[in-house]
Amino acid sequence: MRLITVLYLFAIVVCVRCDYVYITKYIQVPVDHFSFAKNETFKLKYLVNDTYWQNSGPIFFYTGNEGAIETFAQNTGFIWEIAPIFHAYIVFAEHRYYGDSIPYGNTSDPTHLGYLTSSQALADFAYLIADLQKSLKHNNQGARSPVIAFGGSYGGMLAAWMRLKYPGSVQGALASSAPIFQFPGLTKCSKFNEILVSVFRSSYNDSCVRNIKKTWKEIRDTTATSDGKIKLSSTLKLCNNLTSTEDVTRLTDWLNDVYSNLAMVNYPYPANFLASLPAYPVREFCSRMGKSGKPVLDLLSDALSLYTNYTGQIKCININSSTNDFGEYLWNYQACTEMIMPMCTKDNIMYEASPWDFDKYVDSCYKTYGIRISRDDLAILEYGGKDALYTNVIFTNGLLDPWSGGGFLKSASSAYAMLLPNSAHHLDLRASNPADPDSVVTARQRIQDIISHWVRGL
Amino acid sequence: MRLITVLYLFAIVVCVRCDYVYITKYIQVPVDHFSFAKNETFKLKYLVNDTYWQNSGPIFFYTGNEGAIETFAQNTGFIWEIAPIFHAYIVFAEHRYYGDSIPYGNTSDPTHLGYLTSSQALADFAYLIADLQKSLKHNNQGARSPVIAFGGSYGGMLAAWMRLKYPGSVQGALASSAPIFQFPGLTKCSKFNEILVSVFRSSYNDSCVRNIKKTWKEIRDTTATSDGKIKLSSTLKLCNNLTSTEDVTRLTDWLNDVYSNLAMVNYPYPANFLASLPAYPVREFCSRMGKSGKPVLDLLSDALSLYTNYTGQIKCININSSTNDFGEYLWNYQACTEMIMPMCTKDNIMYEASPWDFDKYVDSCYKTYGIRISRDDLAILEYGGKDALYTNVIFTNGLLDPWSGGGFLKSASSAYAMLLPNSAHHLDLRASNPADPDSVVTARQRIQDIISHWVRGL
Repeated sequence: MRLITVLYLFAIVVCVRCDYVYITKYIQVPVDHFSFAKNETFKLKYLVNDTYWQNSGPIFFYTGNEGAIETFAQNTGFIWEIAPIFHAYIVFAEHRYYGDSIPYGNTSDPTHLGYLTSSQALADFAYLIADLQKSLKHNNQGARSPVIAFGGSYGGMLAAWMRLKYPGSVQGALASSAPIFQFPGLTKCSKFNEILVSVFRSSYNDSCVRNIKKTWKEIRDTTATSDGKIKLSSTLKLCNNLTSTEDVTRLTDWLNDVYSNLAMVNYPYPANFLASLPAYPVREFCSRMGKSGKPVLDLLSDALSLYTNYTGQIKCININSSTNDFGEYLWNYQACTEMIMPMCTKDNIMYEASPWDFDKYVDSCYKTYGIRISRDDLAILEYGGKDALYTNVIFTNGLLDPWSGGGFLKSASSAYAMLLPNSAHHLDLRASNPADPDSVVTARQRIQDIISHWVRGL
Repeated sequence: MRLITVLYLFAIVVCVRCDYVYITKYIQVPVDHFSFAKNETFKLKYLVNDTYWQNSGPIFFYTGNEGAIETFAQNTGFIWEIAPIFHAYIVFAEHRYYGDSIPYGNTSDPTHLGYLTSSQALADFAYLIADLQKSLKHNNQGARSPVIAFGGSYGGMLAAWMRLKYPGSVQGALASSAPIFQFPGLTKCSKFNEILVSVFRSSYNDSCVRNIKKTWKEIRDTTATSDGKIKLSSTLKLCNNLTSTEDVTRLTDWLNDVYSNLAMVNYPYPANFLASLPAYPVREFCSRMGKSGKPVLDLLSDALSLYTNYTGQIKCININSSTNDFGEYLWNYQACTEMIMPMCTKDNIMYEASPWDFDKYVDSCYKTYGIRISRDDLAILEYGGKDALYTNVIFTNGLLDPWSGGGFLKSASSAYAMLLPNSAHHLDLRASNPADPDSVVTARQRIQDIISHWVRGL
């Protein structure tokens, strides 16, 4: 932890949805919380809403993940829905380096990027919570407000770790779809892919996955020649023609991302989280991909347009741009340093075999970021892996979510594991919807009961 | 956490006492565990003994404090005594920057000193534990060994914080005389002094403390002139004559340290921890200081020789050297940055009033270290103060120890508070002695029972 008094810089009122109104604030935090060698600070953004707050009501604190914090405020309806019941003060805190909370601007200098770590982000949150506690106490002369952390995906990991590392700052946490065990030696590298395949199979008949499987060889064969590369680029409506082997690898990587994202946001109603998509997008994708009588690459082209162009606004596919807007470059830096989550596929009905190759991974990271790590277990060292002791944390995992394989799946004492059949990636954190599966409706009620217990027990 | 594979550099066998035999080892650890901006490493020293260890026996891990680790190995007989019972593997790990574990050599450069923080030290310990687990597992093909952290004083704080921050690395901790609440707003700044005075009073009659009280004014009056300064220097047998007001302040600060140290090591048998001293050194000191019929400064001179020259080897008193050999400069750096423990005295039977002045403190720190902190609650931010949730930690506090006022004194769930009447600063961690008070004998047995429970329960 480091010096520097707190400074509110300015505040802007933003209305994203009529119900989701917040004030944007900034707090000056140290770039480095864990040494005194550096004296620099930067502005961390956070959003607040005190509409429902009553004296000594809890603080609902969203631990922001890899993206602009507004996205998470818009896609975490659950907090907005239960805040009035708890008379809660709502905070969405941005993760350092993402959105507008950037210490050194858009630089790729390794000595500048180096402070993008989960430990520093957690310390930012603890710093902000301490400041909020002071200001709330001052304004209302009441008891300290208990703090409940909320987060989904990497943000869910941060919520759980916040409770683990700062139990004095945070009295409980809801970690939704948080793959805290997706690290080397804790979960099989093929697990993610196995779940993904089973989601695609169960969403439609096997013709979909069988056709996807065929595409891998078709792509390889077609792109063996320059003409073939141009032809495939045209078939798939790529903005830029494939011209090299690297381009082809980029295409197959991108396709993998598309399938992962489709499974993650396989929500039972139309949504716009990673992309604008209809309800049950995996089923919709497969209903196109699973047709017969047409070349599989034509089917793929048609099916992809669901993902890339559901709104009908896009002219061509740019596989070089991120498949989502979550600061891919920065997240990949984290994935290249402490957040190493090995992924591999065995030969199966939808995929060809692709082993996990740490050395190759490290080489690729070095090329991009100029940093070469020598061990893959830093997150386990810092957060204890399966030996860690979680108290007052609710872990929800949708069983349609490929990330659920790396989740906390077995309750132990006050660490609750809730498994949600028919639910995708942190669906429970989203606003309630008539199409929600029963498991999510029930879980949301149980989560409220547990939070009530935490809040009352303080 | 940071990269860099583990490297045993070399090992030397040292025999300090016939029973306390260990091998000295080194592990290469990152200077900065919490960023990727820096790629440097240094050698951290640790001592091991595997004489008593049997497969899957626990690791007893001493979290080293502010000094060379050998001192703690020599003064923590309790670990050596119970290790055979538990078939434990013994480790004493040195704290970064002390002893031989120095990242940048003896430099006062703030950018080099800046990585001397408790968080980095804890991360060093987690790093070493992970490495030990790997090597032990490999050698014996058994289950992972549970780790029990031990520490006294600041080392006790680290043991408790190790369990707090790395519950996956450490399954339980004994924090002896650990003033984890000696931070701003958690404990009155006068508390330490109040306990100290009561120890001096209860060790002898009031004439001792009354005479000490008189010395403060006598010193001030005598040193008002140059001749007086020389005269007092001669009376107290100082190596260097007092020549300035700063020198006089240095003398009174040093006297305060002597009284604190006497109270801390007020053991019931002769010992050599902070200084070579007889049994019950406060009583012995007071038996000289409490006499009548002589000027109080002469009494002081005679009484001080007990502390400074019990072995009869010392010709004069050097108030500029540390009163102990614990790397005072480095510890004061920690005390100037995150370990800010406000101290003050009210006017009482032994002391004149002296308030806590944070601004003055910060100025003095700036003069010495070129670093000016702006907030005094960094340790509270990082470790949660009284809101922190401790599990599986035993806190022992001797009620004769001035630091006990800032200790964890009330049991809660699996955080055990043991109060030890008639015990001084971490007496319970020392080797057993026929003169030990009953409270310490009983506590040691209870600690063993609890550790058994932790170890068996894993």
